[in-house]
Amino acid sequence: MSKKKKPIGVVLLSGGIDSAVTAAIARERGFTLHALTVGYGQRHGIETRAADKVAAALAVAKHVRQHLDLRAFGGSALTADLDVPKADSDTLVAPGIPVTYVPARNTVLLSLALAYAESIAAADIFIGVNAVDYSGYPDCRPAFIEAFENLANLGTKAGVEGDRFRIHAPLLAMTKADIIREGVRLGVDFSLTHSCYDPSPEGLACGRCDSCRLRRQGFARAGIPDPLLYRNE
Amino acid sequence: MSKKKKPIGVVLLSGGIDSAVTAAIARERGFTLHALTVGYGQRHGIETRAADKVAAALAVAKHVRQHLDLRAFGGSALTADLDVPKADSDTLVAPGIPVTYVPARNTVLLSLALAYAESIAAADIFIGVNAVDYSGYPDCRPAFIEAFENLANLGTKAGVEGDRFRIHAPLLAMTKADIIREGVRLGVDFSLTHSCYDPSPEGLACGRCDSCRLRRQGFARAGIPDPLLYRNE
Repeated sequence: MSKKKKPIGVVLLSGGIDSAVTAAIARERGFTLHALTVGYGQRHGIETRAADKVAAALAVAKHVRQHLDLRAFGGSALTADLDVPKADSDTLVAPGIPVTYVPARNTVLLSLALAYAESIAAADIFIGVNAVDYSGYPDCRPAFIEAFENLANLGTKAGVEGDRFRIHAPLLAMTKADIIREGVRLGVDFSLTHSCYDPSPEGLACGRCDSCRLRRQGFARAGIPDPLLYRNE
Repeated sequence: MSKKKKPIGVVLLSGGIDSAVTAAIARERGFTLHALTVGYGQRHGIETRAADKVAAALAVAKHVRQHLDLRAFGGSALTADLDVPKADSDTLVAPGIPVTYVPARNTVLLSLALAYAESIAAADIFIGVNAVDYSGYPDCRPAFIEAFENLANLGTKAGVEGDRFRIHAPLLAMTKADIIREGVRLGVDFSLTHSCYDPSPEGLACGRCDSCRLRRQGFARAGIPDPLLYRNE
């Protein structure tokens, strides 16, 4: 009986909850993981250090890092000097496209993951986008993921000649609470993940930005304690 | 009488002939130019230095550089340690996808140009791809350009809410000789451009790689002297 080699899955790993759970799902589906972390001029390196820890905990086969300076382009709270919006209330995130939107971010991330996947003859790319909690981001919609898969199969040697690329976005229709429950089921260590847009110099999450609020609300709704320490606690 | 502001065109500028002519076309069409040069781990920095000279000669409003290490992914003659294929004959380039193909290169380049364009509220992106001389590259085909334009308008705030992005590839149906003639008409200084895959340490072009051969053949067919010095002349 021949032992079939496990297929490779390239996983975009940011250091946050969503990409960690996505990686754990890919692993459960039988993929050998190659992780790609893209630093894009965030004001802090905490998120990419979290990605290193998550990659180690998942025992990925390889972890590649790329750095871009999207600040050279200007225009977003996550990369430039705008104030990160905060709120003390536990209300839902405001409708519309948030100011923390990074121009064309997921297009850039997926294109780098595609270059990586084609380089190592992998056909499967995993991204932790989520259309429920991030409905304001155009590049978190199912139509965007489909359009990228179409592009990948037109714009690469592998897509034209060989295996067709598949873009997997397993969290697309899940709420944050669903994602956290799924992560717990898969043994993801959420104490390693980091999501805050505006951490303290020591790396403590603010607890009040959109990302922290979504995280805390998700843990509360899932009925699971958040292992992360917040600044004002 | 109000003077209308010129629209901004983001132009991918590599330092080669095609992108220089593309930029000159964009300028003639009335665009203020913002140039983007992406260094992607080439074995030499000569091409990106040529891009600096071309950008200066075109008097672009801004020139942004990004650097990626595609070598971290492995797998192409332009970025890894494979031998660049050479030939002494003046025959056409061999059919099929060349080994100098860089995985997903134009997808990565266009995604960065899109991030730049969205950041500065520009709707027009120019890329010097060419389906005639580079028929072996999947990401130089009209269908690829159309698919990227579709993606750009699904995956960005600007594409969804505002002006629709247009991806301009004015050289798509031109031969190298056509491109050179068009550059001469527009006053492009071809002595500043550089195309060799394998230059000497002093920066002299080899004259024999696919890119040099296409360039020399193009000048010969256009009946215009190539201002570039080659290594063995």
